[in-house]
Amino acid sequence: MFSGAQVALYPMTDDFVRVILGSLSALDPYRDRFRIESDDLSTLLVGPPEELFPAMRDLHVAASRDGVHCVLHATVSRGCPGEPDDPICTPIGREADTPLPRRIEAALAAVQGAIATGRHVAAQLSLYPLGAAHHMDEIYGCIDFIRRSGVFGKSKNFCTTLRGDAGPVFATLSEAFLRFGSPEGHLALDLTVSANSPTVV
Amino acid sequence: MFSGAQVALYPMTDDFVRVILGSLSALDPYRDRFRIESDDLSTLLVGPPEELFPAMRDLHVAASRDGVHCVLHATVSRGCPGEPDDPICTPIGREADTPLPRRIEAALAAVQGAIATGRHVAAQLSLYPLGAAHHMDEIYGCIDFIRRSGVFGKSKNFCTTLRGDAGPVFATLSEAFLRFGSPEGHLALDLTVSANSPTVV
Repeated sequence: MFSGAQVALYPMTDDFVRVILGSLSALDPYRDRFRIESDDLSTLLVGPPEELFPAMRDLHVAASRDGVHCVLHATVSRGCPGEPDDPICTPIGREADTPLPRRIEAALAAVQGAIATGRHVAAQLSLYPLGAAHHMDEIYGCIDFIRRSGVFGKSKNFCTTLRGDAGPVFATLSEAFLRFGSPEGHLALDLTVSANSPTVV
Repeated sequence: MFSGAQVALYPMTDDFVRVILGSLSALDPYRDRFRIESDDLSTLLVGPPEELFPAMRDLHVAASRDGVHCVLHATVSRGCPGEPDDPICTPIGREADTPLPRRIEAALAAVQGAIATGRHVAAQLSLYPLGAAHHMDEIYGCIDFIRRSGVFGKSKNFCTTLRGDAGPVFATLSEAFLRFGSPEGHLALDLTVSANSPTVV
């Protein structure tokens, strides 16, 4: 198994370098389980699939804590056949043949336990189960889960939005990543999370 | 056929609202062929697949012309089975059975004709051919094309980077979207383009 994300922070302020550098310590609790590499476009996190979304949550909450409009974008992937297995990426802990309705219930139960951060965010995601003949079944199952998650925003063309506290929002995103698509299959997720937008919806 | 993109601009400046609003006139030449809808997370462009990348190029060049560090992110899609056919989205003009090597040559020829804008950008993309049994063949074919495009940057985990003038970079991205995956199939692309980054690579 290989799992990870290319993550970028976009603080909409003249002071964006300081905001980004000032938020990186939020990753310190994860560093011993992750490989982390940065360039000018994004930061690679490679590590256990269950810890990717908590790490991104803590990073985004840290970057947006001073009220600056800040967006996190991530290209998240697991099981890509073009990547080598990496021992730091543990397989996700579920059976291959668990039916979709049971996975939705398990995902909803996991989100119920999410701890609030006190930070409101808006997010949108697109889920891509690759190499699967019935990829739309998994996508529709995931959308059904998100609709019932308590942080559903709306359906848009090409993506689904979420709104609410960063705790349950990132927990819902994590469940979308872990519970849908084949457990050993190739799954990618295109994720945008925004805080402190001046745009009223 | 349904094709379009959810596009967002992230100007890293206190003045981000003015930069975004000031760049929107770059879409004026496309408005009669596109449906355009905005909310706080992104702007939807629905229209002919061949015109999506020229429109995004003009938008990003306009937003970054004053030297501000500005990122464009887009979730681009065509042929999604969950979207209705839309008459403004013309089918892409190629035959279903054109072999991969011939498509790579055609894509390279198209990029040769791209007009320079005078603006340097860095980009990274992930290509997702969905519902296809041999999705990695299309991905590797697309990466082979990008390596020979003249604007190849490097291969990274989960994505491929491009560097160069915005003209050939967006032309290469457009060819990646139009020439790979089944012409009538579901294909998505996760795209980041950055200008004026202070980070030296």
